[in-house]
Parts: sequence; C-alpha cells; structure tokens
Amino acid sequence: MRLRHKPWAREKIEQHPQYIVANPEQCKGKWHEIFEKDQPLHIEVGTGKGQFITEMAKANPDINYMGIELYDSVIVAALDRLIEANLPNLKLLNVNAADLAKYFTKNDVDRVYLNFSDPWPKARHEKRRLTYKDFLKLYEDLLVDGGEIHFKTDNQGLFEYSLMSFSAYGLLLKYVSLDFHKSEYEGNIMTEYEEKFSEQGNRIYRCEVKYQN
Amino acid sequence: MRLRHKPWAREKIEQHPQYIVANPEQCKGKWHEIFEKDQPLHIEVGTGKGQFITEMAKANPDINYMGIELYDSVIVAALDRLIEANLPNLKLLNVNAADLAKYFTKNDVDRVYLNFSDPWPKARHEKRRLTYKDFLKLYEDLLVDGGEIHFKTDNQGLFEYSLMSFSAYGLLLKYVSLDFHKSEYEGNIMTEYEEKFSEQGNRIYRCEVKYQN
Ligand SMILES: C[S@@+](CC[C@H](N)C(=O)[O-])C[C@H]1O[C@@H](n2cnc3c(N)ncnc32)[C@H](O)[C@@H]1O
Ligand SMILES: C[S@@+](CC[C@H](N)C(=O)[O-])C[C@H]1O[C@@H](n2cnc3c(N)ncnc32)[C@H](O)[C@@H]1O
Repeated sequence: MRLRHKPWAREKIEQHPQYIVANPEQCKGKWHEIFEKDQPLHIEVGTGKGQFITEMAKANPDINYMGIELYDSVIVAALDRLIEANLPNLKLLNVNAADLAKYFTKNDVDRVYLNFSDPWPKARHEKRRLTYKDFLKLYEDLLVDGGEIHFKTDNQGLFEYSLMSFSAYGLLLKYVSLDFHKSEYEGNIMTEYEEKFSEQGNRIYRCEVKYQN
Repeated sequence: MRLRHKPWAREKIEQHPQYIVANPEQCKGKWHEIFEKDQPLHIEVGTGKGQFITEMAKANPDINYMGIELYDSVIVAALDRLIEANLPNLKLLNVNAADLAKYFTKNDVDRVYLNFSDPWPKARHEKRRLTYKDFLKLYEDLLVDGGEIHFKTDNQGLFEYSLMSFSAYGLLLKYVSLDFHKSEYEGNIMTEYEEKFSEQGNRIYRCEVKYQN
C-alpha cells in the first residue's frame, strides 16, 4: 500500500465517529451496541480502501462488518466509501492488528477476513505476517469457538507460509483453492488488490480455516 | 496409466522373486530381512514404471526402498529398470495399496511417497484417491511414529483435496510448494509423470506431511 502523507486525514477521521469508531476500548465485549442490529460480526484485518468490506456489508445486511486498517491515510478512502454507502452494518477501526486484544475479547467476533495481507517475504520479518502464530492467537482470543479465518492472496510465498502456519497452529483447513478465479465458487466479492493483480494475470489463492475448540 | 494387456508379465514377475517380493505376507514385521542392510524403509505407493524409486535408491544407498504397484503390466517396466540397475536397496511389490495392512505392521516403514497418484476427480470416487482418509489410516498403521508422507502431483484438484484430507486427519503440513519446479528445493528426482506434465507447462505441487503421534 503506497502511503501518501495526508495531514488532514486524522481530522477527517475524528469528524466521523459514527463510521470510524472513536473509543474502541470501551466497546470490548459489547460491540453489538454500536450497530443497529445485534447480529454476527465479521472483521477484515488490513482492510485498505475498504471495497471488499463495503460490498460485503451491502450484500449481507444480516451480518455486521468492521474494517480494521492501520494507516489513517488509507482508511480515509474506506471512510469516503462508507459515507457514500451509509450502511448501518459497517464500521471502520483505525488501529494496529497487533493491538486487537485491547479492543476485543473472546466471542466478540464470528469471522476474520484477511485479504492480500502484506507478504513480508524476508524470513526475519515473519512475525509481521498477519498469519504468524501470534496473530492466530490474537484472532482465537476474539473469535467464537469454531470461528473461521477466510484468506485470499495472490502471493504464492505468503499462501504457502500461511498453510503451514495454520497447520502448525492446529487449524482445520476447510476449503482451499489454488486458482480461485477459475473455481466454481459463486458470489466472490473482489478487493482492490484482487482486481489489480488478477488483471495482471496472477493466480488468486483462497482458503478457509477453522479453530477446533 | 495406459494399460496394455501383457500376458507374459505375470510369468516374468514370478521369475524374479529377488526383485519383486513373492511372499509379502511372510515379510510383515521383518522387511529388513529381505534387504542387504537393516536401514530405514521408504515406500512409494503407485510407483508406475519405477523411475523415481530407482533413482532414489541409487542416490541414497543408506535407505531401503520399495515400489508398490497394482498392475503387473506396469510393474514389469520397473522390474526391467531394477534388473538393469541391480540395486541391493530396492524391491518391488505387486499388490493393491488397499491391502497394505496384510503385508505391513506398525513401524515397518519410515516414509511414504505418493507421486502423481490417480486423481479420481469425480466426488463419488473419492474413496479411491490414495490420500483419502482410509488410506491415511493404512499409512499410519505401517509407519513409525512421526512418519511422513511426501506427495507430488500436477493435478490441482487432487492437491487441494489432499491438503484438506491431511488437515482433517490431523497431519502436520511441514512443507508445501505451489510451484515446485520454480522453488529453491535442490536434488529433486523426477518421476515419469513429472517429466511429462512439467514439459507440457503444468505446475508441480509438492508437500510433506507428518503424523503427530
Ligand atoms: C496489501 S494491502 C490490501 C488491502 C485490501 N485488503 C485489499 O485486498 O485490497 C494490506 C493492508 O493491510 C494494512 N495493514 C498491514 N498491517 C496491518 C496491521 N498490523 N494492522 C492493521 N492494518 C494493517 C495495510 O496498511 C494495508 O492497507
Ligand atoms: C498416474 S500413475 C503415476 C506413476 C508414477 N508414480 C509417476 O509419478 O510417474 C499412478 C500409478 O499408481 C498405480 N496405482 C493406482 N492405484 C493403486 C493402488 N490402489 N495400489 C497400487 N498401485 C496403484 C497405478 O497403477 C499407476 O501405475
């Protein structure tokens, strides 16, 4: 994700607390209160400009969604989309995934989406990958029992790594496609990166894994 | 594998009991006795014409190998190769993998190789796939604790299925490559099918899984 310095971004975020959660620590254990309806919550970690999560929220009104993004200069693009769409079942959260335990507790979330997460190909950066075991522990600690991670990427190395990391953690591989856009799956919603990289001819990999607790 | 009727195949097999084991039931629990040296035993299930297992046996004299093949019309090609190479650490076995429990007992084998196994793409033929759970149980019952399966194929559907089947069985995914011939792996020994399908431009998939007992 190319970052442009956007000094006005922080201000804009603060002007829209109804869309970008302002006090996430206070929502721990009661996230349903900030949504119109008390229904399952699915989060996307590293949501970028928010195309996937916005379209998912439109398509599935009976699920609450939250897009989590570290950079304010990026999340403002998701904010614009959400202002435009004005969806009651979508919120954004401008925090670092490494801090998820500050904001969420067990059973807060029903599903985690990871889409085109930064690959961090160097071995010494393994700990930064969003499928590293410490992140799998963070997700476990906020998911319901038997909760799932749904993961898409075009990055072969990250996908191979993630399959091994999921296995070592004891997650069940429920679904895997090694050429997702040629599969029989229906109703896929594309992310920005997915559009860009599949247009370049890259294969898209996708899997669903489940915590076995 | 295209099968030609070879009426002389059975006779030829029976003439070479030093290469194609004649009385496998009697070897159960004491396979090391038919080899020159008492050392680890690696088997390939569905060995075809035997190129892989013969080259592996040449390259690794401190491991005993056994190529298992159902069809006599196919195994005779592996037999010719073995007669030519005359290796003390390679034997062939002309049986159905479904009957492995008749010939092997726990700890007889240190590693199982599956290469380009028949894909059986129709859902109703799932039970015939050599990575179906019943086969994983057969392998478990002849392997040492912590024994491994090393699997290569160009068949995307079979590889996807197998990753899920291994996961559901509780096997640990130690290694996975989604484009093996472009990976950094050194010393790969090619099978006949691997040569043929990689020449056609097909990707080769490979993984190593481990029983966690
Ligand atoms: C490669 S982009 C993909 C964006 C989007 N999911 C897509 O598929 O188009 C990865 C995004 O994850 C965000 N990200 C990376 N690490 C993060 C972290 N630790 N916490 C929150 N967001 C993170 C990045 O800022 C970036 O916007
Ligand atoms: C597609 S060929 C691959 C041969 C070789 N491994 C290669 O990679 O070139 C699969 C082989 O497995 C054998 N086979 C299939 N099912 C088997 C079974 N149940 N028991 C033993 N051999 C089997 C077939 O006869 C065939 O020779």
